[in-house]
Amino acid sequence: MLIVQKYGGTSVGNPERIKNVARRVCRAKEEGHDVVVVLSAMSGETDKLIALAAQITDSPDPREMDMLVSTGERVTIALLAMAIHALGHKAQSFTGRQAGILSDSVHTKARIEKITANRIREAISEGKIAVVAGFQGINEKSDVTTLGRGGSDLTAVAVAAALAADFCDIYTDVDGVYTTDPNMVPQARKIGKISYDEMLEMASLGAKVLQTRSVEFAKKYNVPVRVLSSFNDNPGTLVTKEDADMEKVVVSGVAYDKNQAKVTLLGVPDKPGVAATIFNTISGANIVVDMIIQNVSEGGLTDMSFTVPKTDSKKIMEVMKKLVAEIGAKDVNIKEEIAKVSIVGAGMRSHSGVAAMMFTALAKEGINIMMISTSEIKISCVIDSKYTELAVRVLHDTFELEKAA
Amino acid sequence: MLIVQKYGGTSVGNPERIKNVARRVCRAKEEGHDVVVVLSAMSGETDKLIALAAQITDSPDPREMDMLVSTGERVTIALLAMAIHALGHKAQSFTGRQAGILSDSVHTKARIEKITANRIREAISEGKIAVVAGFQGINEKSDVTTLGRGGSDLTAVAVAAALAADFCDIYTDVDGVYTTDPNMVPQARKIGKISYDEMLEMASLGAKVLQTRSVEFAKKYNVPVRVLSSFNDNPGTLVTKEDADMEKVVVSGVAYDKNQAKVTLLGVPDKPGVAATIFNTISGANIVVDMIIQNVSEGGLTDMSFTVPKTDSKKIMEVMKKLVAEIGAKDVNIKEEIAKVSIVGAGMRSHSGVAAMMFTALAKEGINIMMISTSEIKISCVIDSKYTELAVRVLHDTFELEKAA
Repeated sequence: MLIVQKYGGTSVGNPERIKNVARRVCRAKEEGHDVVVVLSAMSGETDKLIALAAQITDSPDPREMDMLVSTGERVTIALLAMAIHALGHKAQSFTGRQAGILSDSVHTKARIEKITANRIREAISEGKIAVVAGFQGINEKSDVTTLGRGGSDLTAVAVAAALAADFCDIYTDVDGVYTTDPNMVPQARKIGKISYDEMLEMASLGAKVLQTRSVEFAKKYNVPVRVLSSFNDNPGTLVTKEDADMEKVVVSGVAYDKNQAKVTLLGVPDKPGVAATIFNTISGANIVVDMIIQNVSEGGLTDMSFTVPKTDSKKIMEVMKKLVAEIGAKDVNIKEEIAKVSIVGAGMRSHSGVAAMMFTALAKEGINIMMISTSEIKISCVIDSKYTELAVRVLHDTFELEKAA
Repeated sequence: MLIVQKYGGTSVGNPERIKNVARRVCRAKEEGHDVVVVLSAMSGETDKLIALAAQITDSPDPREMDMLVSTGERVTIALLAMAIHALGHKAQSFTGRQAGILSDSVHTKARIEKITANRIREAISEGKIAVVAGFQGINEKSDVTTLGRGGSDLTAVAVAAALAADFCDIYTDVDGVYTTDPNMVPQARKIGKISYDEMLEMASLGAKVLQTRSVEFAKKYNVPVRVLSSFNDNPGTLVTKEDADMEKVVVSGVAYDKNQAKVTLLGVPDKPGVAATIFNTISGANIVVDMIIQNVSEGGLTDMSFTVPKTDSKKIMEVMKKLVAEIGAKDVNIKEEIAKVSIVGAGMRSHSGVAAMMFTALAKEGINIMMISTSEIKISCVIDSKYTELAVRVLHDTFELEKAA
C-alpha cells in the first residue's frame, strides 16, 4: 500500500517527539508500505515567527510573510529525515517547491492548483521515505506561498490524491473523531467511520480535528482519510464516502460552538431590498454571518436576527448602529451569551421526526431555543450558553450515541 | 552607483537591529544608489539549528543539514524586506535559488559555480532594494546547498562580481581592519586601504574580519570591498588591488594566532619518503598542518616540527604515537603554549632587511623564536605564547604602525 502520513506541530514539538514519529514511519515502511510523510512546523514556531514580524511592522507584506513562516516546516522535514536515517532507512526531505505543489498567488492563503510530485514518485521508486513540508507551495513566479492555518492537512490530502495513495493518515493529539466532546460527556464514543459530509458539518461546527478545506478536497478526489493519534496505537476514525452502513445511523454526533454572538435588529421596515442592504453592508465589513432568521412581519415591521463570530462583536455593532438610522429600523442589540448546539448525521436524509425529537428533548429540560437552522444532514439550535453542557449531554443520551453503531 | 551591502548575524540579531539596518539601507537608496543587501541569519540561530540536529543524530546527512540551516537567512531577509517597506521603500527578498546562486553539490561546504542574478537585476530596474539570503545556493538537482561558515561574505562578493557592483560593503561589529588587535595595542590604527593579498594573509592568520574565500573571490574578480561597522558611520577599510601607494608601506599589520600547537618528532631517520609518510598519515586523519620545519640532520637522524590546530591536539598525538613505531623515530612531543606572530605587508616584496628587523626586535626583548616561515608578503614566527602581547606590541612599535601611511 501507499500511505501518506501527516503529523501536526504537537507530534513534532521537540527532538524526542520527532524520533518517536520516525519510529512510527519506519514501522509502516517495515510492514511493507510505501510511505510519504507530511509535516507541520514544531508547535509554537509559526507563532514565534509571526511575533517577530509584528515587532518589525503592523502590516507585513504577504509575500514576505510567506517567505518567513514557510521556514518552520523546512526545519521539521530536515530533522525527521535525519531521524529516519538514524533508524537505518532511506529518506529525503522535500520543500513545497521540490514536491511540485503549485498554487495561486494569494499569499498567506493560497489555493493549490496542481501537484506534480515527480520527485516524490522518484524517491518512492528508489525505496526512500519522502518527507514533505506541509502548508507551503510556490506560485508561477516561483515565489513561496502558504496555504493558511491548518494548511498541512490540505497538503497531505492533496499529495495523497496526486499519488492515488491508499490512505491519508492524519496523526494528531486525539485518536479520532468522537460522538461529542469527551471532556463534556464521558460516555462519548469514538466513531469508527464517518462520511465526508458529516465530517464537514462536524468540523465547521467547531470539532477542530481536520481543517475544513482538506475534508472538501478529500471528498472531491475521494481520498480515504484516517484520523489517528501519534501518541498511541488505538484505531482511529476513517473519513470516507457515504455508504449503506452510515445511512442507518440517524445521528452520528453532537457538536457545539460557543464562539458566536447573536445580533437582533428591531422594527425593520418589511419591504423589498432591506435584507440585501443589511447583509451587503455586513459582508462589506468582512464579517461572516452564520445563521439568519426573520420573524413574521407585523404592521409592516419585522425583527431580524443573525449570528456572527464573537470576535467581531464590536465591529458589527458599529456597522449596525449606522445602518439602523439608514434603513429606519427601531434599534439593534447583541447577545454574546449564546451557544449553537447541533446534531449531525447522514441518516437524517431518510429519517423523519429527528428535529421533533431534538426540540422535545431540549424542551423537557426547560431549554429555550432562540434560533434554528437545518441542512440535509444537520440541525442546529441557538440556546442560552449556560445550558450548553446540559443540552449536549441530553442530545447525546436521546440519540443513544454511547451505543456502538 | 550600485552597492552590495552585507550585514552579519550580530547586525541583524533582533528586530530593533534589523530596523537599524533598514534605515542604513534606505539612506543609501535615498542618496541615489541602487542597493542589494545580503544577510546572515540572526546571531545564534544557525548554532541553535545545529544543536537541534545534534539531538537527533550524531551524523546528520549533509543534504538535510543544508535544508535545516538554510532557514535562518530566509527569516532575516523576510524581516528586513518588511522593515524597508515600513520606511516607505520598495524591497523584495530572494533566497539563494531565487537570486540564481548555483553551486556544486558538496553539501555544507558547496562552492559557487555561477550566479545568474536575473531576478535581482529585474528588481533593481523596478527601483526595488533586493534582499538576498547569504550562505546558500542550489545545486543542479535544485537542492539547497550552503557555502560553509562565513559563507554570507562570499555570497556578497560573488553577487557584487555578477552585478559588476561599484562596491561590496561588508558591515560587521568592527569598523575596519586594524594594524593589529586594538585590545592588545591601544595605538593600533585603522588601515584605510589594503591589498587583497595582504588581507588574505591577515585573515588566514587569525584577523577574522572577512572570510578567506570571499577575499580570494574578490581578488579574482577585482571586486572593491569595504569593511564597515553597522553600529557607526566611521570610514572603514577598502580592500582592493595593490597600487603604488601600498608598495611604499613595508609592513601593514601585525597578526597573531594562539590556536596552534607545535608537534615535534625526535630522531626521525633522514631518508627519502619519510616526510611523505608522515604528512600523508596526518592528512589521512583530516588534520590541517600549517608550518613545517626540519632540523639539520645529524648522524642520519633529524628532528621535525610542525603546527596543527590546538583542537586536534589529542587526535594528532594518537596518530603520531603509532607512526613513531612505524617509521622508527625516537619520540614525539607536543607543546600547546605557543603563538604565531606575523608581520604582513605588500612592500616587503621590494624591501630587504625586514626579516632581520623583526628578529632583532624580538631578540632585544629576549623572545626566543621556535619556528619561522615566510611568504612574499609575510613573515611568521612561532614563539612561547606568554610573550604574545609583548611581541605584538614591540613589532607594532618597530615598524611604526601607529603612524598614518
